[in-house]
Amino acid sequence: MLIKKIVNDPRNVVPELLDGLVAAYGGRVRKLADVNAVVRTELQDGKVGVLLGGGSGHEPLFAGFVGEGLADAAACGNVFAAPSPDTILAATRAVNRGAGVLYVYGNYAGDVMNFDMAAELAADEGIRVETVRVWDDAASAPAARTQDRRGIAGDLFVIKIAGAVAASGASLAEAHRVTSRARDATRSIGVAVAAGSIPETGARTFELPDDAIEIGMGLHGEPGVSRERLLPADALVDRMLDVILPDLPFRGGDRVCLLVNDLGATTTMELLIVTRRAHQILRARDVRVQDTLVGSFCTSQEMAGFSLSLLRLDPELERHWTRPAASLALTRG
Amino acid sequence: MLIKKIVNDPRNVVPELLDGLVAAYGGRVRKLADVNAVVRTELQDGKVGVLLGGGSGHEPLFAGFVGEGLADAAACGNVFAAPSPDTILAATRAVNRGAGVLYVYGNYAGDVMNFDMAAELAADEGIRVETVRVWDDAASAPAARTQDRRGIAGDLFVIKIAGAVAASGASLAEAHRVTSRARDATRSIGVAVAAGSIPETGARTFELPDDAIEIGMGLHGEPGVSRERLLPADALVDRMLDVILPDLPFRGGDRVCLLVNDLGATTTMELLIVTRRAHQILRARDVRVQDTLVGSFCTSQEMAGFSLSLLRLDPELERHWTRPAASLALTRG
Repeated sequence: MLIKKIVNDPRNVVPELLDGLVAAYGGRVRKLADVNAVVRTELQDGKVGVLLGGGSGHEPLFAGFVGEGLADAAACGNVFAAPSPDTILAATRAVNRGAGVLYVYGNYAGDVMNFDMAAELAADEGIRVETVRVWDDAASAPAARTQDRRGIAGDLFVIKIAGAVAASGASLAEAHRVTSRARDATRSIGVAVAAGSIPETGARTFELPDDAIEIGMGLHGEPGVSRERLLPADALVDRMLDVILPDLPFRGGDRVCLLVNDLGATTTMELLIVTRRAHQILRARDVRVQDTLVGSFCTSQEMAGFSLSLLRLDPELERHWTRPAASLALTRG
Repeated sequence: MLIKKIVNDPRNVVPELLDGLVAAYGGRVRKLADVNAVVRTELQDGKVGVLLGGGSGHEPLFAGFVGEGLADAAACGNVFAAPSPDTILAATRAVNRGAGVLYVYGNYAGDVMNFDMAAELAADEGIRVETVRVWDDAASAPAARTQDRRGIAGDLFVIKIAGAVAASGASLAEAHRVTSRARDATRSIGVAVAAGSIPETGARTFELPDDAIEIGMGLHGEPGVSRERLLPADALVDRMLDVILPDLPFRGGDRVCLLVNDLGATTTMELLIVTRRAHQILRARDVRVQDTLVGSFCTSQEMAGFSLSLLRLDPELERHWTRPAASLALTRG
C-alpha cells in the first residue's frame, strides 16, 4: 500500500517546508535565496556561528533547532541526501560574524564529504571552521570504532550544548571542545517497527515482516543489531538500555538527560510507556535523570519506532544544558 | 495489516502512560492513587483549579497540558472513553483550593454526562464547579448548532487561556467568562488520511480506500463533510480554510493564533508544507498570524492527517495567551 503524503510537487518538499518553518517562526529566521538553508535573522557580532545540516526528511531536525540559544543556521539537503557544499558554504558565510563557525552534523559519508569541502572553501575566504560529527548510535559499530558510528537523535543534546556554549561568548576552540565533550558523553539506540516512505515515490523505504521489529536500525533503514518478533515495551526498553548503558558506560551516581524520540509515527502513548520503563531501569541502577524529553525530534518520515538517547551530565555540560533556548522543536525556559 | 504497538498489557496502557508522564515531569505532577488522574504537585491556595479530561488515546492531550500556567489536573478515561465520575471527582477534590474548579473538556456525550455527574457530587461537598465545553470542530455540525459540535485540537487554545486566567488570580466566574470567550473565538477542522488503531485489538478504527481522504473526520473516525481523492497539500488547506474562515467569521484585520496539529502519524515535513499554505491564505485575506504552533498536540493514536485551528485574539485573550506556560506538551517562555 502506498503512503498518502500531504504534499504538493514532491520535488519541492524541501523549499516548501522551509517556507512553512520561516512562516511559523514569525520573522526570527529567514531562508537564504537560491539554496535550502535557514538562518536566524538576528546574529550577534563576535559570536561563534553554529551551523547544522544534513538530509531532509528528519523534521523537525535540523532546521527546527535554529533559534535563540541553539543553532544559527541549518543547511538542508534533499530527502535523505546531504546538503551540497554550495548550500553549506552559503550558510557558513551568512552566520560568520568574525568568530568562526562550528559545524555540527551526523556522521554520514555524504555529509562528511560535503561539509569538509565547504570548510575548505570557507577557509579560502578566511572563515575559520571547526567540526563536530555526531556518532551517538551505539548499534551502528562496536565501541572500539565510535568514529564509524552514525548520528541519530542524540544530535539534539550536542546541538543544545553547542548553541549554549556559543551563546555564552566562547571562542571557536572552546565551543569545539565543549561540544565534542557533549558528543562523547551521548549514546543512543533506535528500534524500527515499520518503515516510512519518501515523497517522490510514496513507497516504504524498507520492509519488515508483520510480526518483526529491528533493534538498532538506522534513520534510513540501515541494518541494526537484531531483527526479532515484537517484544512487550518493557522488554524492548530493557534490551535497548542493555546496549547503551555499558557502552559509555553510564554508572551508578551519574546524572543524565534522557530523550525518548519518536521516529515518526509512534504515538505519545507508546513513548510515555517507554519513558516509564526507562526511568525504572535507570533508577534501579542509580543513574539519576535530571531532565526528560519526549516527542518527535529526529524522525525518518513516518517510520514507526523510537530511539532512546542519554547524555551524561557534568557541571560544565549541565550549565550549558540548562541555559534558555527557543526554536520550533525545542524550548527550554 | 495489524499495527505493531509498543505496549505491555494493552489493558494497562493508561496507568502506564501516566506513570511515564509523571517520571518525565520530574516531580512537578503526581498520579492520584487508584484513579487515572494526574495533578500538579504544587497547588496555590485561593487559585481556581483548572481540570481537564477525556478519553485517553489522544496524547499528549490531556495530561500533557497539566503544568505551570496551564491546567492543574487531568482526569483520564480508557482509550476513547470518558473518565468515570469517580475519577473526575477525585481530581476535583485534589485541585480545589477554596476558589472552585473550572472543568474544560471536549463536547462528547460521555464526557458531558460524567463531568456533569461529578460536578453535582462536588457541589454536594461544597465545591463550586463551572464548565466550559469545547466545540471547535466546524465540520461536525452547522454554525447554527455550535453546541452540537465536537471538541478537537482547538482545545489547546482554550486550555492555555483557562490556565493563564486562573494563574492571574481570577475568580471562578471570571475564569469561566474568559475561557468561554476563548472557546467561542476558536474554530478547527481536521482531515484524516489513514486510520489509527486501538491498543486492545491492534486493528484500525476505520478504513479509507487507498486513494481517499475524509475532510472533517472526527478524532474517533466520526464522519466528516466530504470524502474525496487525496488532494495536493495547498488545495487541501484551501478547502479546509474555506470551511473555518467564514464560520466565525475571521475577517481582514483580525489577529489570530494558528495551530497545525498532527493527528498522529503525519510528518513534520507535511505539517510545515501545510503551515506555509495556511500563512499564504491568511496573509492574502489580511488575517494576521501572531503565533503559530506546529506539532502533535491532540492525536488519535497513529491516525494520519492533521487539523487546522484558529483562535481570534483580542486584547484580553492576547494578554492571557502570552503568559508563560510550561508542561510536557506546551512551553511558552
